[in-house]
Amino acid sequence: MCGDYDRPVTADDRLAELGIELPEPPQLPFAPRLVPLLVHDGIGYLSGGGVLDVVGRVGDDVTVEQAREAARRTALYLLRVIRDELGSLEAVARWVKVLGFVRSAPGFGEQPQVINGFTELVVAVYGEQRGLCARSAIGVAELPAGLAVEVEATVALR
Amino acid sequence: MCGDYDRPVTADDRLAELGIELPEPPQLPFAPRLVPLLVHDGIGYLSGGGVLDVVGRVGDDVTVEQAREAARRTALYLLRVIRDELGSLEAVARWVKVLGFVRSAPGFGEQPQVINGFTELVVAVYGEQRGLCARSAIGVAELPAGLAVEVEATVALR
Amino acid sequence: MCGDYDRPVTADDRLAELGIELPEPPQLPFAPRLVPLLVHDGIGYLSGGGVLDVVGRVGDDVTVEQAREAARRTALYLLRVIRDELGSLEAVARWVKVLGFVRSAPGFGEQPQVINGFTELVVAVYGEQRGLCARSAIGVAELPAGLAVEVEATVALR
Repeated sequence: MCGDYDRPVTADDRLAELGIELPEPPQLPFAPRLVPLLVHDGIGYLSGGGVLDVVGRVGDDVTVEQAREAARRTALYLLRVIRDELGSLEAVARWVKVLGFVRSAPGFGEQPQVINGFTELVVAVYGEQRGLCARSAIGVAELPAGLAVEVEATVALR
Repeated sequence: MCGDYDRPVTADDRLAELGIELPEPPQLPFAPRLVPLLVHDGIGYLSGGGVLDVVGRVGDDVTVEQAREAARRTALYLLRVIRDELGSLEAVARWVKVLGFVRSAPGFGEQPQVINGFTELVVAVYGEQRGLCARSAIGVAELPAGLAVEVEATVALR
Repeated sequence: MCGDYDRPVTADDRLAELGIELPEPPQLPFAPRLVPLLVHDGIGYLSGGGVLDVVGRVGDDVTVEQAREAARRTALYLLRVIRDELGSLEAVARWVKVLGFVRSAPGFGEQPQVINGFTELVVAVYGEQRGLCARSAIGVAELPAGLAVEVEATVALR
């Protein structure tokens, strides 16, 4: 409280308040030729990421709640990429666009509810003004290494 | 004709000439944490949209012609979002990128013909110089709420 | 060696060193309303492309190695688009983002290995500093005209 009582609350502060520690990025079982975050002209392009221990089709092998939690953990992983590559979560001025892919069983149509797990974590950490962004949620047949959820994102940098 | 006879034809004019009224945006049956249009640095990012009354797999439950009409109506919905959020269709200087997802029956490969319904409406309203843009059309297994077609887009603003 | 011994190696040079000639762009069997490359504000948006003679599902009709080669040839096709539209491969300052779609048989999860065929060609021609970029690889049910692989990309221009 002393000395910085009027310092604005940062994304890093909110993460600490939520009691969240960012996980190590997953070690992918393949070595794709890509960078996890590319910065060009004030925009950060985050490569698609996912959590390797939630595999299968949502609506069949994987429940909506499990997939939603995988989406939330995918957000943590991308936050870790941001902090590792840019030094701080505050390097992101605002989230711009999220594209979420959900590996879907036939007839499964709750992709938005799954990707909400990603977006809600982002909003919890960055607040609505900086965290709410454009978004699409899509159901796909297959994903790398059988992942249930993969998300890529675009962020605006300070 | 009087007073504005040399005013250039606007996208709003063309829409009126075509006798098109923009529909109310669909009320989604889920409440995703997103904004329909995010503006950053002169670019508008439109969240994926679709029309809720055309559901099923194209090439099976839904014909190419029905899906093409759904894509056309999805364009109208995104135009409505543009007008609601930015005040006028003229706020868009040009269309930049369209990414169209078509929920496809096994073996269905006419995704471009379906997404043409979207792009042709955009070109009818904005003209070729401002309406023709980069595009990808993809066949997916499932879409939110069973939608047959979902389209997201990027536009450059004035 | 004489006269230009300290000229930097260009992407066009590397292509020549690799003994690669860029193919004619495929004549698509449909006439989508799109442009192959749209330039706005220093960014080039490449429409999704593919090679028409590699069709089927990867992991079933098409092997990983065949699909990887299709991805490599898709990169050549997009390089041809860049050269045709912008005059030289050097018009691209750096690759920013690649989004690769692999038409996948049930249970196929090696999409990254397939899209590596695209990315590795780009890195061979542009080098790591300019060629490595953000990337997502997705498995989809169907693609236009039955293509096994489709890739779209975003590049930064000089």
